[in-house]
Amino acid sequence: SSSSSSTAAAKLASDASKVVCRGAGLAKASIGQKNNFTVDCSKAGTNMLMVGVHGPLAPCEEVYVKHMGNKLYNVTYTVKDKGSYTVIVKWGDDNVPGSPYKVAVP
Amino acid sequence: SSSSSSTAAAKLASDASKVVCRGAGLAKASIGQKNNFTVDCSKAGTNMLMVGVHGPLAPCEEVYVKHMGNKLYNVTYTVKDKGSYTVIVKWGDDNVPGSPYKVAVP
Repeated sequence: SSSSSSTAAAKLASDASKVVCRGAGLAKASIGQKNNFTVDCSKAGTNMLMVGVHGPLAPCEEVYVKHMGNKLYNVTYTVKDKGSYTVIVKWGDDNVPGSPYKVAVP
Repeated sequence: SSSSSSTAAAKLASDASKVVCRGAGLAKASIGQKNNFTVDCSKAGTNMLMVGVHGPLAPCEEVYVKHMGNKLYNVTYTVKDKGSYTVIVKWGDDNVPGSPYKVAVP
């Protein structure tokens, strides 16, 4: 079908190394606040953004990924525990530059 | 460090085949509504839940993953376009049973 052929073409055009993540939430997060970063995939072809966040003891409480248009995403997450969190950002199967991020929760 | 050794042990204990996804949002979704499913990872060891949703034309508008405790997650997402969406659920690097899901938006 045209749907599956366009998916195959999109995967060939995907390049995770062209994804750019920015924001304080990639380095430091605070309990009881919304922690943020952006993911700009506009130059990375077509693929699926996958985001995961895990804490030192348990999974991240909540992760919210919003597509702002033109493959620019805003990611918001909340944390419950002090310590070192891991944030993974993948474009399809591939880590984007900088991922996995180590995030400190003081 | 003790942090990295516990991560390695956790990865060895992870088994994506033990993850159970349930809910209407794995088969059908509606424009202008919150579409839901749950992901039960309680028997799948320790790993990071990764969820991605992509539509026929563009990325999913928003995806919200909430940890309810005991590695049970609730996933809510909203869609903008009619057609076939793809929902991918991974436990670490591995697809869980049923993933990728094809979701119809009528």
